[in-house]
Amino acid sequence: MDLEFDLSASFRTSADASAARDTLESLFNDAENLLSKGAPEGQGARIAHWNVEEDRINLQILSGRYVRAHDAVLRLRKKIAPELGKKFHVGIRGIEVHSFTIKIPSEADLKEIKIPFVTNMEYKDGSILLTLDVTESEIEKRIPDRILTLIEDKIAALTYGGKAEHWNLLWQSEEKKQPFKLDPTQEMMKRGWIKRGASRGQWIHGPQSTRLFRAFEKIVVEELLEPLGYREMMFPKLIPWEVWKKSGHAKGVYPEIYYVCPPKTRDPEYWEEISDYYKVTHEVPVSRIKEKIGDPIGGMCYAQCPPFWVFLQGETIANDQFPIKVFDRSGTSHRYESGGIHGMERVDEFHRIEILWTGTPEQVTKASNQLQEKYKHIFNNILDLEWRMAWVTPWFMAQEGLAGVSQQNDVGTIDYEAPLPYRGKDGEWLEFQNVSVNGNKYPSGFNVKCQSGEELWSGCSGVGLERWASVFLAQKGLDPEGWPEEFRKIVGEIPEGFSFL
Amino acid sequence: MDLEFDLSASFRTSADASAARDTLESLFNDAENLLSKGAPEGQGARIAHWNVEEDRINLQILSGRYVRAHDAVLRLRKKIAPELGKKFHVGIRGIEVHSFTIKIPSEADLKEIKIPFVTNMEYKDGSILLTLDVTESEIEKRIPDRILTLIEDKIAALTYGGKAEHWNLLWQSEEKKQPFKLDPTQEMMKRGWIKRGASRGQWIHGPQSTRLFRAFEKIVVEELLEPLGYREMMFPKLIPWEVWKKSGHAKGVYPEIYYVCPPKTRDPEYWEEISDYYKVTHEVPVSRIKEKIGDPIGGMCYAQCPPFWVFLQGETIANDQFPIKVFDRSGTSHRYESGGIHGMERVDEFHRIEILWTGTPEQVTKASNQLQEKYKHIFNNILDLEWRMAWVTPWFMAQEGLAGVSQQNDVGTIDYEAPLPYRGKDGEWLEFQNVSVNGNKYPSGFNVKCQSGEELWSGCSGVGLERWASVFLAQKGLDPEGWPEEFRKIVGEIPEGFSFL
Ligand SMILES: Nc1ncnc2c1ncn2[C@@H]1O[C@H](COP(=O)(O)OP(=O)(O)OP(=O)(O)O)[C@@H](O)[C@H]1O
Ligand SMILES: Nc1ncnc2c1ncn2[C@@H]1O[C@H](COP(=O)(O)OP(=O)(O)OP(=O)(O)O)[C@@H](O)[C@H]1O
Ligand SMILES: [Mg+2]
Ligand SMILES: [Mg+2]
Ligand SMILES: [Zn+2]
Ligand SMILES: [Zn+2]
Repeated sequence: MDLEFDLSASFRTSADASAARDTLESLFNDAENLLSKGAPEGQGARIAHWNVEEDRINLQILSGRYVRAHDAVLRLRKKIAPELGKKFHVGIRGIEVHSFTIKIPSEADLKEIKIPFVTNMEYKDGSILLTLDVTESEIEKRIPDRILTLIEDKIAALTYGGKAEHWNLLWQSEEKKQPFKLDPTQEMMKRGWIKRGASRGQWIHGPQSTRLFRAFEKIVVEELLEPLGYREMMFPKLIPWEVWKKSGHAKGVYPEIYYVCPPKTRDPEYWEEISDYYKVTHEVPVSRIKEKIGDPIGGMCYAQCPPFWVFLQGETIANDQFPIKVFDRSGTSHRYESGGIHGMERVDEFHRIEILWTGTPEQVTKASNQLQEKYKHIFNNILDLEWRMAWVTPWFMAQEGLAGVSQQNDVGTIDYEAPLPYRGKDGEWLEFQNVSVNGNKYPSGFNVKCQSGEELWSGCSGVGLERWASVFLAQKGLDPEGWPEEFRKIVGEIPEGFSFL
Repeated sequence: MDLEFDLSASFRTSADASAARDTLESLFNDAENLLSKGAPEGQGARIAHWNVEEDRINLQILSGRYVRAHDAVLRLRKKIAPELGKKFHVGIRGIEVHSFTIKIPSEADLKEIKIPFVTNMEYKDGSILLTLDVTESEIEKRIPDRILTLIEDKIAALTYGGKAEHWNLLWQSEEKKQPFKLDPTQEMMKRGWIKRGASRGQWIHGPQSTRLFRAFEKIVVEELLEPLGYREMMFPKLIPWEVWKKSGHAKGVYPEIYYVCPPKTRDPEYWEEISDYYKVTHEVPVSRIKEKIGDPIGGMCYAQCPPFWVFLQGETIANDQFPIKVFDRSGTSHRYESGGIHGMERVDEFHRIEILWTGTPEQVTKASNQLQEKYKHIFNNILDLEWRMAWVTPWFMAQEGLAGVSQQNDVGTIDYEAPLPYRGKDGEWLEFQNVSVNGNKYPSGFNVKCQSGEELWSGCSGVGLERWASVFLAQKGLDPEGWPEEFRKIVGEIPEGFSFL
């Protein structure tokens, strides 16, 4: 069994349309082609019933997935309007929807959820029956289609829900002896390299770990970004909804973001009572502050690349400018990670070099391969790590709540993972970075065009410095004596920190 | 006329205290010394009236500024309690406050304001009369003192309110020929160096201005930070209230901060309706989101140095560790600046190198002088700027809503200012950085101690890269041909950006 749409609606006419009945009859009888265009043989929409009642032309339309009942009604209006106008001087004023249901096969019921424009949802005989309350405007905005996609994704999630993410090994280094077995976060704390910050999942880095991070940065810049022609930019770090709407994050990033709200005004008088309250009580009145701030305008940087695209947004770019290759390391990323005790390997505030490229699909795929080469060199010959690469559910699909892998070849995410010896032989490996080919997602979301008209793709790679440090120190220990020669040359002398009594 | 405190209160006793009347009489008659200790001659508190009524010892206490009535009552309790206990086996259970007023001279009335624990405020005959509703607990927390300070600050603000901030020229370069007269923000936009970001007061920097910023950074690191022995750290960029309470920002930073709220939970089911709403309507339901996020936990980085202090918080540090000299350039600062059109010189999101040092007052003052030397060299010999330095209201006083300059010698802020030729001959100069000696404010707020017991001071200096760029480009133009030779060597070739059709 497949989808069933059942739509009862009227065309509201500017005058009595009874005189047009015969014309309508022949138009509707001839409509089969119109209502089948684009559908497989015999799978078009059909008019189950129609009549004219003064200034209403009433219709019941049934359909399956291909030419959907609400599309059919728009096609019909387009066809009959000129004829009614020319022959009878009758105009179509609008469409009234009387009832609209969609029946969707599903092996199980969905839990109760509140979906805009859905007034009822019922599970019976292997199907979910949706009752929609929509008007002409929603039909024109294709809202029934969005509702259907949403429900179908939820049904799909029911089946893959329990299963793990997609994961497919691409390459694995040889196993390495791992004599160091301690948790580097604990060791760093003991040696005074880092201290917990005052906010959740946040660290303050002393001179020692800062030097380590800067050394990683230097490697990425000198071994990879400069030779491959990447240019440094500075991407914004406060991300408004507008950006996340175009990047797709607005579909599902909500549980993990730190939301940002501006003051309702910067008038000092408006804030005086808060200041006064604090000065008298030495307590910050947070719930009164919440009333005095605006609705959230977005959040703190989450994925780092979306705000770059505003730079190219709406532009058409000459062919010779591609591939465009840039990177950003101008600020922090913030995620509301799961609670419980994590070390530096899973933090709420982290530092990442974001590498981003765009061009034709060939250029983008090539750039991805070149990066992979360079990373392999870095991890094998400079950092001497045990690690592997795997083809996984693309990060942008995961963030939109989708499972599986991309339908398109070459589009998807490679995760880089490494064992943390302190977790033991069977301990979970840590994702320490990724390389992603995102297809046309960003150029299309931000409306960026290539002069030649060719499709544009893009890719990105996020080098998480906390993750690199977690992996490197877990495998090599904190003592520079145990670090690979190549890396020691780059990092130089680890500076002294501060000691406390 | 001076301050007048008038407090009526009772000591509640564990049993009838009538038998102790004579003892009390002689204690109270002898109390003059006790109630004058610390006050100038004749300016102590005095007991205007007292009596015993069963298990209440009633008192009316009058005072001026020095030994305040509510302090006096605490001193009296301390004095009589042992005598009552020893001789009469009567204990003091607590203090009941019946009425408490404070009369504060003021040339004018304050506007109506809501202050915790103040039930009435009246202006009469050149004084403000405050009626307080406090209990023993507020008296012990010295809340009446905080209320008084608050009101006195407000009265002071009435008089300096209209006046400009304190400003005192320290040094000024010679006047320079300024042939370039254009607004650099406009020019940068025309040449595709920068584009507006999607959020308020936010820019995306292309490769050209990023190179410029990195060159400024290189100058600061190589000419100033390395020779003077500053070590790089990474300070957090999400600042919880706890930090701003200790740094003093909680007193007044509210109008300008971007507030941060975490999700109430990261359970995906909790957020499903928001995702679903977005997927169907393509609109982000911001007011429903506001209900689903927690109270603000703090804000985005505002002043950059406060979160560093958590690293030293509560520690006692060996003398030989001082002066401690560090810097941070690991992320963005955010301020809700005034609306209207600003260029890069006043942005909501900016990049700053924060330099911070702490040690004995001499060490801190010396470090400040050394920085000033280096800056002078940089602005005169490398960037060839027209600029000046002025002694101004300290930034930490301004942020707490205070005017004037610090009472302590050597404590205060130096602003660095430069003319922007496009603003014309009489145009306002732009503050492009500062150097501040903050006295013991931070070490004391974060409870940091020196082994020797000597007082600790600290200082900080904020190098705003957008401000440096605004000043440099406004005076020198965007064409490297017009830039000083010394600087051109450092910045190298300005990379090409992207061009659009
Ligand atoms: N909480 C975090 N702490 C430190 N680095 C992180 C964190 N989350 C993401 N990163 C870094 O950003 C990169 C890209 O982010 P991505 O969204 O792919 O991570 P993720 O899939 O959420 O990682 P994980 O599955 O470990 O949570 C990661 O490879 C990692 O380097
Ligand atoms: N809105 C801003 N845009 C760019 N840089 C800024 C901004 N606000 C502050 N800075 C930088 O941070 C430094 C220290 O901040 P400070 O609080 O002293 O600035 P401020 O007194 O608020 O400046 P202004 O009076 O111009 O608003 C400034 O000297 C400047 O370099
Ligand atoms: Mg994650
Ligand atoms: Mg300001
Ligand atoms: Zn990315
Ligand atoms: Zn500072």
